[in-house]
Amino acid sequence: MDNNENQELNLETVENLDDVTTVDLALQLSDYDDESLQKLCQKLGDEELARILEESELKTQLRIIEFLNNKRILKLFSYMSKDDIVDILGETNVGKAKELINLMKEGDKKIIKQLLGYRDDCAGGIMTTEYIAINSNLIIRDTIKKIKEIAPKTELIDTIFVVNRNKELIGTAELRDILVAPEEQKLQEITNEHFVYVEPETDQEEVALIASKYDLTAIPVLNKKKAMLGIITIDDIVDVLVEEQTEDVLKMGGVAKEETLDSTIWESVKLRLPWLFINLLTAFLASMTVKSFENTIAQVVALSSIMSIVTGMGGNTGTQTVSIIIRNIAMGKVDLKDAFYLIKKQILVGMINGAVIGVVTGIIISIIYGNIYLGIIIFGAMVANLVISGICGTLIPLILRKLKIDPALSSSIFLTTVTDVLGFFIFLSLANLFLPYLI
Amino acid sequence: MDNNENQELNLETVENLDDVTTVDLALQLSDYDDESLQKLCQKLGDEELARILEESELKTQLRIIEFLNNKRILKLFSYMSKDDIVDILGETNVGKAKELINLMKEGDKKIIKQLLGYRDDCAGGIMTTEYIAINSNLIIRDTIKKIKEIAPKTELIDTIFVVNRNKELIGTAELRDILVAPEEQKLQEITNEHFVYVEPETDQEEVALIASKYDLTAIPVLNKKKAMLGIITIDDIVDVLVEEQTEDVLKMGGVAKEETLDSTIWESVKLRLPWLFINLLTAFLASMTVKSFENTIAQVVALSSIMSIVTGMGGNTGTQTVSIIIRNIAMGKVDLKDAFYLIKKQILVGMINGAVIGVVTGIIISIIYGNIYLGIIIFGAMVANLVISGICGTLIPLILRKLKIDPALSSSIFLTTVTDVLGFFIFLSLANLFLPYLI
Repeated sequence: MDNNENQELNLETVENLDDVTTVDLALQLSDYDDESLQKLCQKLGDEELARILEESELKTQLRIIEFLNNKRILKLFSYMSKDDIVDILGETNVGKAKELINLMKEGDKKIIKQLLGYRDDCAGGIMTTEYIAINSNLIIRDTIKKIKEIAPKTELIDTIFVVNRNKELIGTAELRDILVAPEEQKLQEITNEHFVYVEPETDQEEVALIASKYDLTAIPVLNKKKAMLGIITIDDIVDVLVEEQTEDVLKMGGVAKEETLDSTIWESVKLRLPWLFINLLTAFLASMTVKSFENTIAQVVALSSIMSIVTGMGGNTGTQTVSIIIRNIAMGKVDLKDAFYLIKKQILVGMINGAVIGVVTGIIISIIYGNIYLGIIIFGAMVANLVISGICGTLIPLILRKLKIDPALSSSIFLTTVTDVLGFFIFLSLANLFLPYLI
Repeated sequence: MDNNENQELNLETVENLDDVTTVDLALQLSDYDDESLQKLCQKLGDEELARILEESELKTQLRIIEFLNNKRILKLFSYMSKDDIVDILGETNVGKAKELINLMKEGDKKIIKQLLGYRDDCAGGIMTTEYIAINSNLIIRDTIKKIKEIAPKTELIDTIFVVNRNKELIGTAELRDILVAPEEQKLQEITNEHFVYVEPETDQEEVALIASKYDLTAIPVLNKKKAMLGIITIDDIVDVLVEEQTEDVLKMGGVAKEETLDSTIWESVKLRLPWLFINLLTAFLASMTVKSFENTIAQVVALSSIMSIVTGMGGNTGTQTVSIIIRNIAMGKVDLKDAFYLIKKQILVGMINGAVIGVVTGIIISIIYGNIYLGIIIFGAMVANLVISGICGTLIPLILRKLKIDPALSSSIFLTTVTDVLGFFIFLSLANLFLPYLI
């Protein structure tokens, strides 16, 4: 809740922006037309516009960059974190990005080029190069002096990174400890040498889980030689978590992460059709399975209305298992070597649930159709299909993960194929076997 | 990555625990048997055990609390944050919790009782009462002195909360600004008076989204009179995000959030059966729809193998739409008043996708069964069902949300009911209409 939420933001009151107003204004800009946006850019000072640019949505950032000349953009960049600059440059058209990079100072150019080299969903892509690194030999008085100097230019000041003369990270020190330490003590003496770090290639979701596990407000990014490349701050980790959560929900529903509520109709159609076509293939496989039993169904039409109960329940059980496995894969708590133990459990759960659901369904079906054999068939098929869906619900995501295919995205399609095809097959085969008793 | 990850932790090396080792050890305890756990508790000093307790999983926390006498527990509590104490007390058996609270100092007792009164998934339930609040009239020199005093006892020091004499929050000050400000300046002069806050009843997911939006490292929790009750720190917000992400994935798969990989077979059975029974109801509804067309199917058995293609594709399209809507509801970006605009779009997307998928399916079916009317029927049913699933995929989660029913949990069941029942109904009705051309 914003203590000022009913106050309309407008172009006349954009001076002396504080953090909260900056964010609110930045997020409103997506509704601005080109003219208003240009007016705002002219009106705002460089530092204010830079803050707004940092907090805006990507589309707005690119629109603003389009309006401004290179000189002004570089001025704005001088107020911005390197990771935010890189995010923008990575999405700008390549020509403009190259132009801007060439106009930068040598030192900046080098850092920006390096950061642009990392994928934007790994540690290197979300790290910032603004942090406080101090040599372990400094005494506390000089350390504090140095912190005061650097503080205004960094994102984070409560954790100080302590390095040796080769710029290798040897530990971290907390600002609170520094503030209360004797002035003549060496920084090294209050340095905690047991720290957690990531490499620039580490996946951003893993970075977030490490931060969450160790309650870190910043994670250092080190190269193979343990030299510091940058840090990942907690606000970027929070953004990663929100982004990954969105991706998980969309992926499990068969939607590309690129689709939003603002997507045009054509974008939605283009993003969704591939998924629907893959599913169509599955649907045809199941359909062909049923087709091969047409003779049986022709003799006992009741089978046609009952069979989808078996496949439906198989799909549901499988999805339950898949969800648990997928989430535990993402949290790094399970992999293929646990499969044997997990499957043993899922088989038992499937047998018990299958028996309970199967008995209830069997009784109801026996009564409705006045044939106890139909009930027995659906009981048998239900137990079998629920056991199969438990096994596949466990194995499919673990195998996909092993093959480096995203299990959240692809598990459901393989699972449905198995539970539909085998569900129909088992039920109709059993019906075939009992055919004399059904007619 | 832990720079020490291959070093086995054991009971002999648990002195002078640093943060990283504490977390690693705390998380390992779930594998300890009772005897080892008791040994560890005896061996560790109060402060070390308190740190371990804070970082352990809930089950381990409760086991440790069982082993210790009240006196030792209270000693441990003196080293712990109030929010962590409350999390443990809230899950301990009520008798023991009351005993412990009664043994506490008056001041602590009051705070703990107040915190226990909040639901554990709202701001009040995750806030801590350890923070730095300083009167706005203090000058910088005294402010720094005060910060040094309080710092060792608080979770967070980089944001200082500035209050007036009635303990009402009037703004925040950044430690970095305080460190570089002139010693004689008043704190008020560098206070940012535009801040974001939440109330104790605010849902934890909303708190997390606010923190993410404004890049906050701590959010103050205020009562109606704007007096400070506590703060929510970023590490708890990260935990909320991870927890909510797990819940979302499980809910969408029809699994209770209580089920984990460690759940026993009986726990899994008990947690999953209710969901399967609800789905069984849906399956029967669909089955009865088909049953009412048994005469039609008896005359054209091919219908039995084709009909599930229509319902399957309807389910997929609906799930795509539901996923996008659910996620945007969770992010606070959409509600029922946007329904009209959203549905218009989904109808168009459904028509286009339905037409594309319908034409492909229709052609294949016409060829397989040598009957062009079958192809026309499936085309019509496909377009109709995909439009319906787009409408329902949008409306169902929005209406559930309005009725205060969790859309992530319940949308799929209502959606499947509609797309299955209507899918079968439309396809078989069309078949009935064209019956003379199919035989």
